[in-house]
Amino acid sequence: MGRAARAAARLMARADTGSKNAALKAIAAELDKQRPQLAAANEKDMQRGRDNGLDAALLDRLELTDARIDAMIEGLLQIAELPDPVGEVSDLKYRPSGIQVGKMRVPLGVVGIIYESRPNVTIDAASLCLKSGNATILRGGSEALYSNGAIAACIAAGLKQAGLPETAVQVVDTTDRAAVGALIAMPEFVDVIVPRGGKGLIERISREARVPVIKHLDGICHVYLDDRADPQKAFEIALNAKTHRYGVCNAMETLLVAEAVAVEFLSRLAVAYLEQGVELRGCDRTRAIVPQALPATEEDWATEYLAPVLSIRVVADMDAAMDHIAQYSSGHTESIVTEDYTRARRFLAEVDSSSVMVNASTRFADGFEYGLGAEIGISTDKIHARGPVGLEGLTSQKWIVFGDGQIRQ
Amino acid sequence: MGRAARAAARLMARADTGSKNAALKAIAAELDKQRPQLAAANEKDMQRGRDNGLDAALLDRLELTDARIDAMIEGLLQIAELPDPVGEVSDLKYRPSGIQVGKMRVPLGVVGIIYESRPNVTIDAASLCLKSGNATILRGGSEALYSNGAIAACIAAGLKQAGLPETAVQVVDTTDRAAVGALIAMPEFVDVIVPRGGKGLIERISREARVPVIKHLDGICHVYLDDRADPQKAFEIALNAKTHRYGVCNAMETLLVAEAVAVEFLSRLAVAYLEQGVELRGCDRTRAIVPQALPATEEDWATEYLAPVLSIRVVADMDAAMDHIAQYSSGHTESIVTEDYTRARRFLAEVDSSSVMVNASTRFADGFEYGLGAEIGISTDKIHARGPVGLEGLTSQKWIVFGDGQIRQ
Repeated sequence: MGRAARAAARLMARADTGSKNAALKAIAAELDKQRPQLAAANEKDMQRGRDNGLDAALLDRLELTDARIDAMIEGLLQIAELPDPVGEVSDLKYRPSGIQVGKMRVPLGVVGIIYESRPNVTIDAASLCLKSGNATILRGGSEALYSNGAIAACIAAGLKQAGLPETAVQVVDTTDRAAVGALIAMPEFVDVIVPRGGKGLIERISREARVPVIKHLDGICHVYLDDRADPQKAFEIALNAKTHRYGVCNAMETLLVAEAVAVEFLSRLAVAYLEQGVELRGCDRTRAIVPQALPATEEDWATEYLAPVLSIRVVADMDAAMDHIAQYSSGHTESIVTEDYTRARRFLAEVDSSSVMVNASTRFADGFEYGLGAEIGISTDKIHARGPVGLEGLTSQKWIVFGDGQIRQ
Repeated sequence: MGRAARAAARLMARADTGSKNAALKAIAAELDKQRPQLAAANEKDMQRGRDNGLDAALLDRLELTDARIDAMIEGLLQIAELPDPVGEVSDLKYRPSGIQVGKMRVPLGVVGIIYESRPNVTIDAASLCLKSGNATILRGGSEALYSNGAIAACIAAGLKQAGLPETAVQVVDTTDRAAVGALIAMPEFVDVIVPRGGKGLIERISREARVPVIKHLDGICHVYLDDRADPQKAFEIALNAKTHRYGVCNAMETLLVAEAVAVEFLSRLAVAYLEQGVELRGCDRTRAIVPQALPATEEDWATEYLAPVLSIRVVADMDAAMDHIAQYSSGHTESIVTEDYTRARRFLAEVDSSSVMVNASTRFADGFEYGLGAEIGISTDKIHARGPVGLEGLTSQKWIVFGDGQIRQ
């Protein structure tokens, strides 16, 4: 499988944009045509899941409704519309030796995607890898065995119609328990692993992988309300960052408030949070202002709730806020609300997270909102892709040199 | 040490360009002032090396001559002249939501450098990391214990004079054998490891590291002489790529020649190679043209000689050459010599190496020749930095968002 992927990667790297787009559209058409087969395969997985006592949340993720198939089709057509990153040449310039040096964007090669039960990830991941000229090995959760098989058949048919190798997207038989271990340990056949799923999966893969991993661990995001913040912006951003959606990685988990404005800002915010059913946990000074808040423990500062729970800390000033962030943040997204020019500049420069914002909700940290068109995940790594990873994050740049017979003197 | 580096990294990330340049110049001045101390420390290492029976090549690398100290000083001053990559903002644009999104270049954080006996690497690595705003932990070879200690004292003095934390560059006590193992296994304190040294060292670190590694393995570089090559360019490039220097990673190790021009090109080249004392090893068809060539084995195609030895293979055409390269290349540098427009374009697009060239000697694959000003190494990885790694390769890009109170709808 690794060897087939490596061979397919060479063909995919030189596939022209038209063929890749044709494949994406053909896969979309196949999905539409094969709705009955997809429904039947998914029902088998659902039945097995119910028999095995999977919980409701897992069963919901597993389900392939017509609306979800529509979304997969829509996603494929959107990715077909995106510009092709492969072959883009930049920074081409002449050197004193007479050679002309630049960079060319090229696919990474073979991308391994390891994910859990959502079958739609099969299409999301395959389409991004396909458009960026990579070969892909997909390893989904064993709960979605039949659904992924049916989707894989659509992908293979679409690739074939476009004249691209069917091995460009391979789906691992999920009943093979050793497959994940093999996939993450063969740097000769796999160039990068993108795990998508829960923290346990990602930590295990990071620990054991011998192949580079583009990973997304926690999203412990902070909003700092400065004493020079506009009160209305502070209120709206702090509320939106927590309550717009709870189970997402770019939701705020800890609110930091400058002490000079803590009474003013927290009194109003607490009412709004409690109205929406958000459980508040605060430091002592927060609890003096918001008596309904439970005491926050050391563990709270380091927790990604993914739930209607918020920890709140009153801090002396921006430096104290940045110290808290440096200690507890997972490096995903932090936002400052301030009207102070110098503080905004310092926060942007000094906070070391994949997204750093001024006067905007952390909820904007997202490939679609950033204009990437699509994302395969949000990387909290510092090497290679950082933050939302789109097509460009699945490519690399090689150096190219144009000469006229130059030799080193 | 990890904790101190992490703390220093925060201070270094916000150090202004002037302070970093002042530190580089102060370190240069210290090296100049401390020449007697450096010589004495180096003599202790040399004496110990001679006592321990180190071979001449190793002793040569260990020696810190006045010329080498001059070169270190020169390197420091050159790096002070380079533009500071930190804080560079690119691709800033407005999104439909009203937020303005862009990328800011930031240091990686803490860079661990593991190297062998050359003490001058201490300065090279420290100065590149310093200018790019990183904190560094350096672990040199135990043979250079005293020399590295003396150099570290100069670095600490220079950092102090410029008002930067002395812990921004820490040198590990090389008598501590467990230090390498610890350094490569603490992702919480080290963001990236750059090993510099022999293949054994790099393979071991790649295998065991739990921290991302920017590595350079082999340089098995190829030149392909196409049947549409200009004969004079073909002759000069093939000769220069092999004989300009032998012990370097960007020297050609295998020459591929199109069969239509094999007799013409190889007859002339063989004379020139043999005149320079290059041992030739060829495929059967090469040996039919060059009887002095020894038979090349399968192992030859996969060997980085780093010596006056060259393997030669006659191939049917460019596709066969690219197949050979895909199978045997280490992904460092390949060059085609041709006057054919379409073939030049295909070779550039399809060959998957960190540098791909047309009509130029592989010897140009070098940070100085590419205009990076300096390099910490040449990466044969595909993730993050690829090819010569300069200041930019020691940085990462985070996303920045400017808002006016925007929230997600």
